[in-house]
Amino acid sequence: MPTPITIVAGVGPGTGASVARRFAKSYPVILLARNPENYESLAKEINSSGGKAVGISTDVSSEESLKNAFSQIEKEFPGAPAAAAVFNAGGKFVRKGILEQTVEEFTAGHEVAVKGAFIFSQKSLPLLLKHAEDKGAKYPPTLIFTGATASVKANALRAGFASAKFAMRALSTSIAKEFAPQGVHVAHAIIDGVIDIPRTKEWLKDQPPEAKIEADAIAEAYWNLHTQSKRCFTNEIDIRPMLEKW
Amino acid sequence: MPTPITIVAGVGPGTGASVARRFAKSYPVILLARNPENYESLAKEINSSGGKAVGISTDVSSEESLKNAFSQIEKEFPGAPAAAAVFNAGGKFVRKGILEQTVEEFTAGHEVAVKGAFIFSQKSLPLLLKHAEDKGAKYPPTLIFTGATASVKANALRAGFASAKFAMRALSTSIAKEFAPQGVHVAHAIIDGVIDIPRTKEWLKDQPPEAKIEADAIAEAYWNLHTQSKRCFTNEIDIRPMLEKW
Amino acid sequence: MPTPITIVAGVGPGTGASVARRFAKSYPVILLARNPENYESLAKEINSSGGKAVGISTDVSSEESLKNAFSQIEKEFPGAPAAAAVFNAGGKFVRKGILEQTVEEFTAGHEVAVKGAFIFSQKSLPLLLKHAEDKGAKYPPTLIFTGATASVKANALRAGFASAKFAMRALSTSIAKEFAPQGVHVAHAIIDGVIDIPRTKEWLKDQPPEAKIEADAIAEAYWNLHTQSKRCFTNEIDIRPMLEKW
Amino acid sequence: MPTPITIVAGVGPGTGASVARRFAKSYPVILLARNPENYESLAKEINSSGGKAVGISTDVSSEESLKNAFSQIEKEFPGAPAAAAVFNAGGKFVRKGILEQTVEEFTAGHEVAVKGAFIFSQKSLPLLLKHAEDKGAKYPPTLIFTGATASVKANALRAGFASAKFAMRALSTSIAKEFAPQGVHVAHAIIDGVIDIPRTKEWLKDQPPEAKIEADAIAEAYWNLHTQSKRCFTNEIDIRPMLEKW
Repeated sequence: MPTPITIVAGVGPGTGASVARRFAKSYPVILLARNPENYESLAKEINSSGGKAVGISTDVSSEESLKNAFSQIEKEFPGAPAAAAVFNAGGKFVRKGILEQTVEEFTAGHEVAVKGAFIFSQKSLPLLLKHAEDKGAKYPPTLIFTGATASVKANALRAGFASAKFAMRALSTSIAKEFAPQGVHVAHAIIDGVIDIPRTKEWLKDQPPEAKIEADAIAEAYWNLHTQSKRCFTNEIDIRPMLEKW
Repeated sequence: MPTPITIVAGVGPGTGASVARRFAKSYPVILLARNPENYESLAKEINSSGGKAVGISTDVSSEESLKNAFSQIEKEFPGAPAAAAVFNAGGKFVRKGILEQTVEEFTAGHEVAVKGAFIFSQKSLPLLLKHAEDKGAKYPPTLIFTGATASVKANALRAGFASAKFAMRALSTSIAKEFAPQGVHVAHAIIDGVIDIPRTKEWLKDQPPEAKIEADAIAEAYWNLHTQSKRCFTNEIDIRPMLEKW
Repeated sequence: MPTPITIVAGVGPGTGASVARRFAKSYPVILLARNPENYESLAKEINSSGGKAVGISTDVSSEESLKNAFSQIEKEFPGAPAAAAVFNAGGKFVRKGILEQTVEEFTAGHEVAVKGAFIFSQKSLPLLLKHAEDKGAKYPPTLIFTGATASVKANALRAGFASAKFAMRALSTSIAKEFAPQGVHVAHAIIDGVIDIPRTKEWLKDQPPEAKIEADAIAEAYWNLHTQSKRCFTNEIDIRPMLEKW
Repeated sequence: MPTPITIVAGVGPGTGASVARRFAKSYPVILLARNPENYESLAKEINSSGGKAVGISTDVSSEESLKNAFSQIEKEFPGAPAAAAVFNAGGKFVRKGILEQTVEEFTAGHEVAVKGAFIFSQKSLPLLLKHAEDKGAKYPPTLIFTGATASVKANALRAGFASAKFAMRALSTSIAKEFAPQGVHVAHAIIDGVIDIPRTKEWLKDQPPEAKIEADAIAEAYWNLHTQSKRCFTNEIDIRPMLEKW
């Protein structure tokens, strides 16, 4: 059986990059992002430090685009099973009242977070199943979805975000139940707090570091999910920084 | 202020018809359904028994179609506020594994249950707000969404259905929080069981009637939600028949 | 079959009294409260306005005391079935940190809200089952538990309150599932907000009346639960005032 | 600062023993069990394989007994902070209908699972806080509660079990929120499935090993919770075997 790979959808300068770095310690990683600048330096970094990374420009909301991405994966790693697939793509969401937003603004995020999550699952699962059948596999194949506070709490002015995240959570559970008997471990992470990334640098500035989540720590939690045995699958975790109010 | 109306989206020979009949005792009702045969006899029945009903052929997943429907409503009932709006449209869902369905099959139901629910809300809310401002209004305006077991439980082979219903539930909560301060009462009903309608006639045949939900009883529950005071809003109820396992 | 009665545990100048008044329009009501001054004027009021009410001094956390109360009920209304039983008793809870409270302070509330709810259910269910068997019964017998925000949300400094309320909610669901097949309707109400009663007069004073829940409206919601048919049981509702943040 | 310890309440031939073994790789472990035979051979095993374990006969439902246990801990490890405290005690629960059980049968489990969990927390938290203040501490102090399917799902005939487990979950969350700002990590684990221990040997016998949860894997998951950084606390995980239906 060829070396198993890890596929990360939604690589940017935050959780996605940290997850890619963490899994790259054990597997070649595929970095999917719409914009090449989101994966180029990361791929270079991983490749130059002993790992193996391949970036592919992909629009996860497009079946055609994901199909192409997976063809490229097959070309780069012929017959490779996937040890892990992480769906970390965000999507554009507005913070607006129901009457202040267009239908397109409402549905835009769903294209990525729901439809994209579905297509990504559909393309990844055959590779994950291949890993499940590999007697020599070290850990069960793992499909992880990155959720948010809004996955379980729908606030005013966040109808699009919350509905998309609720939907993705349901998708995760449905897939978990369908594929667990075949040995695929599916998990959903409720990231409840601000992640400490360049984009959020100015947020919570007056607070200590423990007010924000460390992206590397999320990656470590995902890795720990991945290493769980078939006799101990965790299908959902929440994650928040020490100083989060909830 | 003109007489307030009630708008029911998704009128068929089940919950929608029962809800329309129930609210027609107090308000003129607008019956929205894609197919005229779903509302024609019902409109006739209501109109001939002392009520007032207007059917409009509408595709709730289309902004254009809903825009036309609401223009027609405005023509029929100029300036009328809405005392209630009920989103009861279903959508097409498959019972298939992730790898057995097309992307279109997965998203089809979302078009109605999520996007449709959003557009319907967007069009109804101005009329509901008008009712909220009416000092003479008997009950606060009410926007009700019909959910299902899948709104809170995502099963295998039901990824599309569950994700759409989870999303609709989040939408309902987000709207509830945004518009409650303006006096609009938004509620979500988790219909947990088989509704006794012509289409389900053959289901649970060997069981007593208490194994299925009576559509008229759902309508009564919706009416009771509508009559709640501003000092006592119920935002979610579950409904199941006496013999349901849960 | 003798006239069915309603039993309300936890009658005080708030929800309990409103519930008693509402159900007294249709049934003789039994008023249970530890302190006679909590039911005396209410009983007088109901009895003098055409209803029938009997107050019994009871400590719901004591099996002996509830046994005596139900013996007295049997004496007053021999063989009477119960159309409804409402558990509205509170219990003493502290707002203290884990390290600032005694074990007794932590468990005190559980005595009423959990153990009391259990004993009350145990004593009421035979009377409710009798009503379920009565072919002439107008509505299915109903057992209702009054919960709180803390039934679904456990906050800091409220460990005792939240754990007791979570426990009562689980008790309610377990009883609902056990007795529904026999026709008993069990419901749990999450009262999410401040109820407008004499004790809370000073709370939210700067806000409009819609910031507090009206006790009579809760009673109406309970009555609506009671009148649901066997083919449409609601097992949980939430209730909040229009201006509640949630 | 003296060497930090780990305290495990509810050590038996299952999860408790596995947790003790896992944490003993890094810390001296205190084994609390009502019955010395539940910890004697385990303590011997750990002590003879390079670890350090001390068993103390304790009834966690008794404040006096836990007070004595913690005095003994203080004597054995003077001034030692606690790196972890795991509440894994069960309690006696009946599988009976509401009308078939005594009040004592209903409350017996609460004594351990709720009151015991509270007292154990009260006694452990000062030692956990001491660890939180230790600048040299490797991982944040962790308090873990072992829950069950019944922590989130209340079934018929399981009123006592479910209400106690719901209550313990609320207790866990309340403590988590209170002590997180001081650096204590509190987590609740929903163990959703049959754990493979001697007592369950005959259960699910016709099924493959993946139908049961491995106790050592639970211990590993707890260890992974313990090693989370202050910027990434998971407060709840679920755990189930690959073949579990849920």
